[in-house]
Amino acid sequence: MSIPSDLDIAQAATLKPMDDIARQMDLPTEFLERHGTDVAKIELEAIEAMKDRPRAKYVVVTAVTPTPLGEGKTTTTVGLGQAFSHIGKRGVVAIRQPSMGPTFGIKGGAAGGGYSQVVPMEKFNLHLTGDFHAVTSAHNLLSAVLDNHLYQGNAAGLDPYRVTWRRVLDVNDRALRNVVTGLGGRMDGVPREAGFDITSASEVMAVLALSNDLGELRQRLGRIVVGYTPDGDAVTAEDIHAAGSMAALMRDALKPNLMQTLENTPVLVHAGPFGNIATGNSSIVADRIGIHSGDFLVTEAGFGADMGAERFFNIKCRTSGMSPDAAVVVATVRALKVHSGNHKIVAGKDLPPALLEENPEEVHAGAANLRKQIENMRIHGVSPVVCINAFPTDHPSEHQAIREIAESMGARAAVSTHFADGGRGAAEVAEAVAEAANEPSQFQLLYPDDAPLREKIETIATKVYGADGVDYAPAANTSIDLYERNGFGNLPVCVAKTHLSISSDPKLLGAPTGWRMPVREVRASVGAGFIYPICGDMRTMPGLGKNPAAHHIDVKPDGTIVGLF
Amino acid sequence: MSIPSDLDIAQAATLKPMDDIARQMDLPTEFLERHGTDVAKIELEAIEAMKDRPRAKYVVVTAVTPTPLGEGKTTTTVGLGQAFSHIGKRGVVAIRQPSMGPTFGIKGGAAGGGYSQVVPMEKFNLHLTGDFHAVTSAHNLLSAVLDNHLYQGNAAGLDPYRVTWRRVLDVNDRALRNVVTGLGGRMDGVPREAGFDITSASEVMAVLALSNDLGELRQRLGRIVVGYTPDGDAVTAEDIHAAGSMAALMRDALKPNLMQTLENTPVLVHAGPFGNIATGNSSIVADRIGIHSGDFLVTEAGFGADMGAERFFNIKCRTSGMSPDAAVVVATVRALKVHSGNHKIVAGKDLPPALLEENPEEVHAGAANLRKQIENMRIHGVSPVVCINAFPTDHPSEHQAIREIAESMGARAAVSTHFADGGRGAAEVAEAVAEAANEPSQFQLLYPDDAPLREKIETIATKVYGADGVDYAPAANTSIDLYERNGFGNLPVCVAKTHLSISSDPKLLGAPTGWRMPVREVRASVGAGFIYPICGDMRTMPGLGKNPAAHHIDVKPDGTIVGLF
Repeated sequence: MSIPSDLDIAQAATLKPMDDIARQMDLPTEFLERHGTDVAKIELEAIEAMKDRPRAKYVVVTAVTPTPLGEGKTTTTVGLGQAFSHIGKRGVVAIRQPSMGPTFGIKGGAAGGGYSQVVPMEKFNLHLTGDFHAVTSAHNLLSAVLDNHLYQGNAAGLDPYRVTWRRVLDVNDRALRNVVTGLGGRMDGVPREAGFDITSASEVMAVLALSNDLGELRQRLGRIVVGYTPDGDAVTAEDIHAAGSMAALMRDALKPNLMQTLENTPVLVHAGPFGNIATGNSSIVADRIGIHSGDFLVTEAGFGADMGAERFFNIKCRTSGMSPDAAVVVATVRALKVHSGNHKIVAGKDLPPALLEENPEEVHAGAANLRKQIENMRIHGVSPVVCINAFPTDHPSEHQAIREIAESMGARAAVSTHFADGGRGAAEVAEAVAEAANEPSQFQLLYPDDAPLREKIETIATKVYGADGVDYAPAANTSIDLYERNGFGNLPVCVAKTHLSISSDPKLLGAPTGWRMPVREVRASVGAGFIYPICGDMRTMPGLGKNPAAHHIDVKPDGTIVGLF
Repeated sequence: MSIPSDLDIAQAATLKPMDDIARQMDLPTEFLERHGTDVAKIELEAIEAMKDRPRAKYVVVTAVTPTPLGEGKTTTTVGLGQAFSHIGKRGVVAIRQPSMGPTFGIKGGAAGGGYSQVVPMEKFNLHLTGDFHAVTSAHNLLSAVLDNHLYQGNAAGLDPYRVTWRRVLDVNDRALRNVVTGLGGRMDGVPREAGFDITSASEVMAVLALSNDLGELRQRLGRIVVGYTPDGDAVTAEDIHAAGSMAALMRDALKPNLMQTLENTPVLVHAGPFGNIATGNSSIVADRIGIHSGDFLVTEAGFGADMGAERFFNIKCRTSGMSPDAAVVVATVRALKVHSGNHKIVAGKDLPPALLEENPEEVHAGAANLRKQIENMRIHGVSPVVCINAFPTDHPSEHQAIREIAESMGARAAVSTHFADGGRGAAEVAEAVAEAANEPSQFQLLYPDDAPLREKIETIATKVYGADGVDYAPAANTSIDLYERNGFGNLPVCVAKTHLSISSDPKLLGAPTGWRMPVREVRASVGAGFIYPICGDMRTMPGLGKNPAAHHIDVKPDGTIVGLF
């Protein structure tokens, strides 16, 4: 079986006019704001206009703890969205917009792959309608107003050594991680240590993803904490008079982007917050539209089920008030074999040949991870469906092994060949999802708003990650006390840890037990609405490799982009 | 006479559908790429499709040496564009996209004013279709690839102390002028002194403005010089394999943006290169479309006639091969009175009362500047028309004084009330322009491509600025020799000097003589295609003031932006 390249498949696609895509969603075309032929923004008035329509089943796609290669969560999300039309239902997909930085770094697309892609992929991967640029602009305007505030007399009384707000750019640039700004002389600002993160790590991005409407976006931007006074009182974007301008820059970015899959399934592409220090989920406003646009709204949550799905439940759904009906846990033969502890995968290198040999016992040996992630759905009261994402190198006995693991947990399971076959290949998964979503919803949040921050952290660590407990570094304790004293104790918690293990140690495979989670420091995204403990080395500005994609991408005089994938 | 605020006028405007605007230009609507209701990009295929259509008269709008408040060049450009419909002709306007940085700095719009504005002004001033963001992205991708090149072994042999490429952001942020990057440790890049300019100062912006088509844009990006080897050999964006990716990021930005004036005159808004270190003119591709879209294409050149218009002729027209038919020199009573030397205007403060008293003699006393700028049009063989931009505080005798000065030079002159009256108020100017443009074209470049760089600089200094000669600092001589040795000697020259005097000394009013121009250093925009000698203190990253517009702009829950003007 030979599948053409993603680019070849994408460029051979027949796209439908956006009006037709909107009609499939029962979305009146008057709400479309066109951005070229194949992309439209949706006016937020659509939310109010559609709110009395029937409600779709709300399905989150998550995964076992992935290998460094990823296990095909985006392709599954796109493929499953396409699959519903093959079982007589209407599916709508909601996914994150990818960051442009990594597009020019490690070769590889974010639009899905094979016959499960979002098109046109050049638009999807480059600029789209400029929402990331709006985030960059709003974020850095706040940075400029902040440094100007220090320069013009510091009326808010900020402690220059306790400024927490950095700058952002949507580029992989390690040289910007740690910088000194304000050099040059008396007219050139106040010298201080500073740094840049990638735009997807901006709190403004998380605000975009977690706002229910424009008024709330405006309020959240105002609540962003930029630093503290010497007495430990938070200073906000509102305090230094930057939030209104930020909101003006973000106004149009809050409108979700409408695209389509290769099979013309509607796709809402909106926001792209980081998956470790932020929620790793697409926007609430997109889901508020998608939930009234079909029979099934399929949305993806970043990284494994302990990460993205947990935040989907306890941060995104808590904030939106929306309740999920089913969770798809993507599992691969490859990942479970790696969780057996017998293999090591390194990104950019060939797979070890032993990994490709038929070995269902090894799949069973790595079952603990899948079991725990299924359980992680159950503790939130959400019905899990295991999607066995088939690779050409898999063997039927290995798929059967995954099916047995799932069924031993009482979970539905189905093999999916959406990469090779498009929506048709995910039809069996779609049937299983439809059944699971029809069970009465038992959805529950893991902890109440008013639990103390340490209790929230410990609840996630013990119940979701399987830790025995949590150890706080002194700096972490100081920060938690500071946040609770400033009134931030009622926020949910987003644990920033590795995505390569359910534990906070990337080397621990399977479902580690008998470990304690070390919290090195704790930071606050007060505007976005969460506190994030740092458990490990979190990189918020990637670098470029020795031979990055940036060296190979080009554009022909006729406008064709080459080398993007 | 009381005129409503710019914002009130703009929000009361009745906009026509973009299809109607295109039809006014005989532009097939199939070439429109829609970006919301009131903005469209124009596909570049339109250039080929329209090239055999009748050619419009090509009119550049320039000005006397302005006061710090500006003399209404943009309002005149917009008003004159509108005026042609009042004399039975079709006008099209081509102007620069404004930078967002100053929008949040000093309060004041860039969309024209009064009844001569481009609408919708919120779109015009914020993001538009993201072209500036594309420039920021492409520029900073090159920066990242460059620092990565140093980090990964420096195969091109760059001298880290001779890196000339900086970074850019579209924000007024003085703290970014001088920074140290690459701090943190072994994994965080190579430490070095660096800095940020505002996006409009990016060479990529100048490339956007000066490319005739996408293939040429790609080539120009490749020719950008990022630094030098220890032996003084230039290292380019092509050498470090970044130019293709930059072109991919810039592909859609090369399509000009179509908007309209309050009177529904078509406006091409495209590119916004700095007026001192770059050309200060809008894009060639926009003009290549506009020149076949009506009877008159009216375009604005930044700053006074010694600056923007000189570059319009000797850089933009040299590069495009297009030939201007008339030049409008905007003059105000206020500016000529200031050139008399009797008054001083400070931005942000009230005008001195004595300036507002009826005093035609004082206008005559400041005539030298207008005479010299008229002469500066003549030495390029272009017919000048003096537009007397009327202010409510002017007196008829003062307008008459300007008319006498113009006519003593054999130039046409007319009073314009476009601010208060829209296009109707500029009808007399439009008639004069139509007459001037009907004279046989005598257009000539000031110097040939193959003149040595020093000769080019001296030609501009003596013939346009009225200097006795040029003095080069040692660093300037070194750079000129370096550029000529690297094969850049055939490029035109863009003298970076103050816009507040025809001389390089901002304090010298009128038409200074008996002075020599000091060239402190010389830089090269090899990709954009010009060499720029620095004659004075050029600031390429503005700062915010004590009470910037950023503190007052806001957005209401219904999406209305307030405080923008």
